[in-house]
Amino acid sequence: MKIFKIGGGIIDDKIALENFLSDFAQIKTPKILVHGGGRGANVQLKKMGIEPKMIEGRRVTDEQTLEVVTGFYAGVTNKEIVAGLQKLGVNALGISGPDGNAIQGVKRPVKTIDYGFVGDLSDDSVNVSLFELLIENGIVPVVCAITHDGSGQLLNTNADTIASTLAVALAKVYEVDLHFCFEKNGVLTDVNDDQSYIPEIDFESYQQLKADKIVADGMIPKLDNAFSVIENGVKKVYIQHASHINSEIGTILK
Amino acid sequence: MKIFKIGGGIIDDKIALENFLSDFAQIKTPKILVHGGGRGANVQLKKMGIEPKMIEGRRVTDEQTLEVVTGFYAGVTNKEIVAGLQKLGVNALGISGPDGNAIQGVKRPVKTIDYGFVGDLSDDSVNVSLFELLIENGIVPVVCAITHDGSGQLLNTNADTIASTLAVALAKVYEVDLHFCFEKNGVLTDVNDDQSYIPEIDFESYQQLKADKIVADGMIPKLDNAFSVIENGVKKVYIQHASHINSEIGTILK
Repeated sequence: MKIFKIGGGIIDDKIALENFLSDFAQIKTPKILVHGGGRGANVQLKKMGIEPKMIEGRRVTDEQTLEVVTGFYAGVTNKEIVAGLQKLGVNALGISGPDGNAIQGVKRPVKTIDYGFVGDLSDDSVNVSLFELLIENGIVPVVCAITHDGSGQLLNTNADTIASTLAVALAKVYEVDLHFCFEKNGVLTDVNDDQSYIPEIDFESYQQLKADKIVADGMIPKLDNAFSVIENGVKKVYIQHASHINSEIGTILK
Repeated sequence: MKIFKIGGGIIDDKIALENFLSDFAQIKTPKILVHGGGRGANVQLKKMGIEPKMIEGRRVTDEQTLEVVTGFYAGVTNKEIVAGLQKLGVNALGISGPDGNAIQGVKRPVKTIDYGFVGDLSDDSVNVSLFELLIENGIVPVVCAITHDGSGQLLNTNADTIASTLAVALAKVYEVDLHFCFEKNGVLTDVNDDQSYIPEIDFESYQQLKADKIVADGMIPKLDNAFSVIENGVKKVYIQHASHINSEIGTILK
């Protein structure tokens, strides 16, 4: 089973998204699509006179912001993707955290920063049997980045975290490959050269790449997360261009 | 199996909605909730400088309006209801038309009026096997008023029409009661007296009520629709106050 994560860079590019969905439709094994939000929520917030607040790349989510991101992630973006996949003959079904209690999070505790209605996930966040039921019946879950706390509160949740948590949870039942899709060919040794992607990294070579300062600072948390996912039972993690999901082009971690 | 439809009057009243969900949670038979939208979409449209356009009580849906109503109906309202039901121990799962190809419509043909992205339904609009799968697995579908055309286009669709079409389609498989819930006790003989509801109407007594001009003009299309639903296999239609779903108070058509 393959889990794919796409982010704003693809969602905001109509052609790239259409191409991705068309490639995704070709995949014959059981599959799940996890998507982040695009620019839509920010555009909407600005129209309403609300300036999006980001701290260290994470969105601070007050009540009004939660309403807007829920509308975009679980509503507009999710349903457009699901309708687009149905058109291609894929029996997609949109899932947010509360749907069938798919993914339950906890509101991030306030330490120095109050992120507001932001959800953190843990090992037991995923309702594995719901995903099994859907997958065994030929349904393709399309998961958005909204979860709930089980007490009626919706929570804005990082889409990479959702994809990773889902992959680890489903690895108990399936052989899982996790694909992080973006607009680069993979982990690059030269950020200005898209052909400089490293085809394969294992845990040992990763230590060497870090020691030699070949992988850039921003990539380290992503790779740390990817190796943690592998350590927890996921077979392979792909970091690759969204247009390469049906090829082996990209960085494969195992 | 019982299908309940609630509209804006309940969705916009936080206390009424909480009470309704709490009563809905008590129902032991298989059940489905269909909801319309509340004021949220109109408030949002006005903030964006778009004046909602209604013709004969139906919303004219241009592209921007479709985005806003999709965000509210399939996103905000649907997920808040689903999260609220999960809190009450009901394994709710939100469904819009494209999800699992649940409900497919056709864009309303332009005659004298162009309603834009508005969907009409027909006898074969409902994917009965999807609802069976969910219901047989203890999942409670929460259906919003957005459908799709099977070719990637989302469509704004009347929630009463969705509830009726769903009830008729599921009547092929289940014994179905359909409950239209609103803020009155039922079909009233005196619109100013909420105690004047007619407990029971059958097709014959309905003809008499019409001949005697006892039922008001606005109620006639609703009752015509209800009797058509019964003619097509639904066992009983309730027109009742949202707070009376666990009682027999209200107008029962059969």
